[in-house]
Amino acid sequence: MRASGTQRRLLDSILSYWSWKKSNVAGTTPTSQNPHTHTDTHKEENPKKEGLGFNFKWGSKSSSSSLSSVSSSSSSSSSLAAVREVVERRRSCRRFDPAAPIDPALLADLLTATTRAPTAFNLQPWVAVVVQEAAQREALAKATLDQIQPREAPVTIIFAGDTQPVRNAAAALEMGLESGHLAPTYGAVFLRHVYYQMHAGPLDAFAHIKGAVASNYSAWTGTPMLSVPTNMQAYAWKQTMIPATTFVYLATAAGLDTSIIEGFDEAQVRNVVQLPSHYTIPVIVSVGYGTREGFRSVKSPRFPPSHLIRWGKY
Amino acid sequence: MRASGTQRRLLDSILSYWSWKKSNVAGTTPTSQNPHTHTDTHKEENPKKEGLGFNFKWGSKSSSSSLSSVSSSSSSSSSLAAVREVVERRRSCRRFDPAAPIDPALLADLLTATTRAPTAFNLQPWVAVVVQEAAQREALAKATLDQIQPREAPVTIIFAGDTQPVRNAAAALEMGLESGHLAPTYGAVFLRHVYYQMHAGPLDAFAHIKGAVASNYSAWTGTPMLSVPTNMQAYAWKQTMIPATTFVYLATAAGLDTSIIEGFDEAQVRNVVQLPSHYTIPVIVSVGYGTREGFRSVKSPRFPPSHLIRWGKY
Repeated sequence: MRASGTQRRLLDSILSYWSWKKSNVAGTTPTSQNPHTHTDTHKEENPKKEGLGFNFKWGSKSSSSSLSSVSSSSSSSSSLAAVREVVERRRSCRRFDPAAPIDPALLADLLTATTRAPTAFNLQPWVAVVVQEAAQREALAKATLDQIQPREAPVTIIFAGDTQPVRNAAAALEMGLESGHLAPTYGAVFLRHVYYQMHAGPLDAFAHIKGAVASNYSAWTGTPMLSVPTNMQAYAWKQTMIPATTFVYLATAAGLDTSIIEGFDEAQVRNVVQLPSHYTIPVIVSVGYGTREGFRSVKSPRFPPSHLIRWGKY
Repeated sequence: MRASGTQRRLLDSILSYWSWKKSNVAGTTPTSQNPHTHTDTHKEENPKKEGLGFNFKWGSKSSSSSLSSVSSSSSSSSSLAAVREVVERRRSCRRFDPAAPIDPALLADLLTATTRAPTAFNLQPWVAVVVQEAAQREALAKATLDQIQPREAPVTIIFAGDTQPVRNAAAALEMGLESGHLAPTYGAVFLRHVYYQMHAGPLDAFAHIKGAVASNYSAWTGTPMLSVPTNMQAYAWKQTMIPATTFVYLATAAGLDTSIIEGFDEAQVRNVVQLPSHYTIPVIVSVGYGTREGFRSVKSPRFPPSHLIRWGKY
């Protein structure tokens, strides 16, 4: 009997995860090919969680202090003031100072913090590819129809979403079980949920079938049915905008300026960083230190709250 | 001669914007039907900007202090520490304390700050509908297949994206000109850019045509062409996840707990708040004060940074 498409996909994702794990986290020494990955410290914090045979710590650095700090609002007024100030200070920057590089340790730190962004089923179906080399920046500037930000900013980050998020299901499950985040009995339920929600199949055909069955059943019987995402590009963009937004605020808080760019030739951007075709790119973000010319003299206005915020009904 | 679809759409959006403006901001007294809208203060700050005949202030409350604070990193280390702490402290909350309401002024304040979230072309094509009534919360719980968060949390917010973002183009342009954010000469360019990028037409047909022409031209000639969004659901979700993410961090900073929910029956959620059909809902967010049972004992683990963050290429 041959394995079904779903089974093959699951097998593939498990095998690719194991192979990634072996090459990235074998032994206790991270084999980082890039010095910037050094911020994955704190890995010794939870020494008891040795997991399913791999000697690897998941870096959930705050797990020890977790519950006690949950709902703690002792410092919340100052914390709110700081976050609010960052949200209101952030502005889109058009001109960056090419002579002002970003401290590599700071950049790695911001990106590491970004990985804490919320993510559905803990699948983390996104990747951030960091471009710093002059030739790549020039190629990105060309791919954005000569927008100046990727050329002048010392760093431009391509945020890409995986249109096949089930590929991460096996890894997310194993990670959840190893860390103790998921109870052992939840394993089967987890995969069932993820596959029901997220397995789209070729041309998203299975997603469309599930969606049609669910919405018709729901309409006929009045029984609520989960909306499965039949649009995997939309799903990937949704999941990717969470870390992208997170990064922008972290960078702003660090005194950096950012430009969120969505006007680009996706195929060319993909080529610049050799991104596989199952990824889709909602935004690229240039980051650096802005010049005075980088900002319009008047801050971008917003609709009044009553236009965007509704109470009770639209 | 009859107006084309595009012309009619533009006319419609201008007319609906004017009618909204008249009913919402006529005169100097906001006619707020809900006490929570009282946070739209600060409107007297920029008294010189009377604009194009409407006596209305856009509430860009920080415009006076704008340029001086841009790139100011004087307080950046404490600011970064605060934002980073919030990003790392945020956890998905499953059980809320139904007896712990949110201070209405705080909620309105957080939502007002959320409107400062980044938005492409300043179109702000999203809306946040706030549900607090018991009957509506119960209906939302049903629409999420009896997930407990919308029932127990005092507040659940439906974040919805407009699949016809061009509807806001006229308003965004007028607002930009009135506030001085857009130079008068930029007006025509603005509408041309917005329409090229964002006008999708019936069944997104025009978007597909533009996309096909652009990608084929690009492939044949090697000339980069902007990727127009041919998937308006994906575009709406992308733009809506920015304020949704912003709100989650602001709420966390304020000592509130949140649950981002994407498993729901979209049609039923839409009915609960009478949302027009051109809106699409990527997430709903329950917010309140979590109980100890609301959190797993171990924090959700993440892939190591080397898995999510790549340097130079994928």
